[in-house]
Amino acid sequence: MSDTPMTYPIEIGGLTRHLPLFEVASGVRIAVLNVLGDTALVQAAATGLALKMSGMDYAVLVTAEAKSIPLIHALSVATGRPYVVLRKSYKPYMGDALRATTHSITTGDEQTLYLDAKDRELVADAHVVLVDDVISSGSTLQAMRKIMNLAGAHIAAEAAILTEGDRANWSEVIALGHLPIFTD
Amino acid sequence: MSDTPMTYPIEIGGLTRHLPLFEVASGVRIAVLNVLGDTALVQAAATGLALKMSGMDYAVLVTAEAKSIPLIHALSVATGRPYVVLRKSYKPYMGDALRATTHSITTGDEQTLYLDAKDRELVADAHVVLVDDVISSGSTLQAMRKIMNLAGAHIAAEAAILTEGDRANWSEVIALGHLPIFTD
Repeated sequence: MSDTPMTYPIEIGGLTRHLPLFEVASGVRIAVLNVLGDTALVQAAATGLALKMSGMDYAVLVTAEAKSIPLIHALSVATGRPYVVLRKSYKPYMGDALRATTHSITTGDEQTLYLDAKDRELVADAHVVLVDDVISSGSTLQAMRKIMNLAGAHIAAEAAILTEGDRANWSEVIALGHLPIFTD
Repeated sequence: MSDTPMTYPIEIGGLTRHLPLFEVASGVRIAVLNVLGDTALVQAAATGLALKMSGMDYAVLVTAEAKSIPLIHALSVATGRPYVVLRKSYKPYMGDALRATTHSITTGDEQTLYLDAKDRELVADAHVVLVDDVISSGSTLQAMRKIMNLAGAHIAAEAAILTEGDRANWSEVIALGHLPIFTD
């Protein structure tokens, strides 16, 4: 382990962060970005993404809870567009919510997302941008796409602070950087 | 039902919102504030709370996921203080996290919160302000207090956009308004 790096550096809008590496399988490590609590990085990422999205035709920002919520709020302030948070569990106050479940072929994970009744009208027939903090396996993105299709939204673009893994999978994603996956 | 109001109006920093009423027990209704997606209201609430907290001695803002996350981010921007989000489930990347479980005598609810290992040093021996969107039964507040005590933090104040229910319970809370509970 002596020659194994413990962190991976990223740079977003002039801010550097040293992401801790976390072993997810034997000999396989990922760099963990958790922007909850990192106000400066979220503000810089929102500014950077808003700039890349300027001139694009879209009406609403959409994300899934919870780690991306500071980003979507800051991006809403920066772009002037409203946003929707897809929830991972149903709450009684969400009324006649839409629900979509996806199964990841690669990870086996099942993911269910809910669109609050109050937000259905906002996205119906609207051009939306799907936003996440990190797009890696794509399972959250797949669930967001599915529920937006059910809701009658048009997906104008997909955006993230960082993509991860095979960069070719995410060449269409608007992002500010890329994380490799580390194998021994 | 014809003379039963369907919404309850609130005003925060010049913005009016008509909160939907939701029946939580036979003949008992509450007004539901969900700030996820309401960027303008969150910005106004953060400005209002930051003003009320100016001159106070505190170093860190603390909340619990998920609905209050836009507020704590905006309040962090407004006050220049860092923030911590207590999580409702444990994730592997949270490392050696602290955990606290509380049981509400009034509602019977059990609530567990986790403090990410990365955030433990930030709150240890620090003066913190506990923040929530709405403080009602106080069960989330109680769980936040317990985990902050375990972490060695000092609770400087408690703040919310709105308090709810018996106003006398929350006379010490820094808030921008109050919601009654509606009984037929």
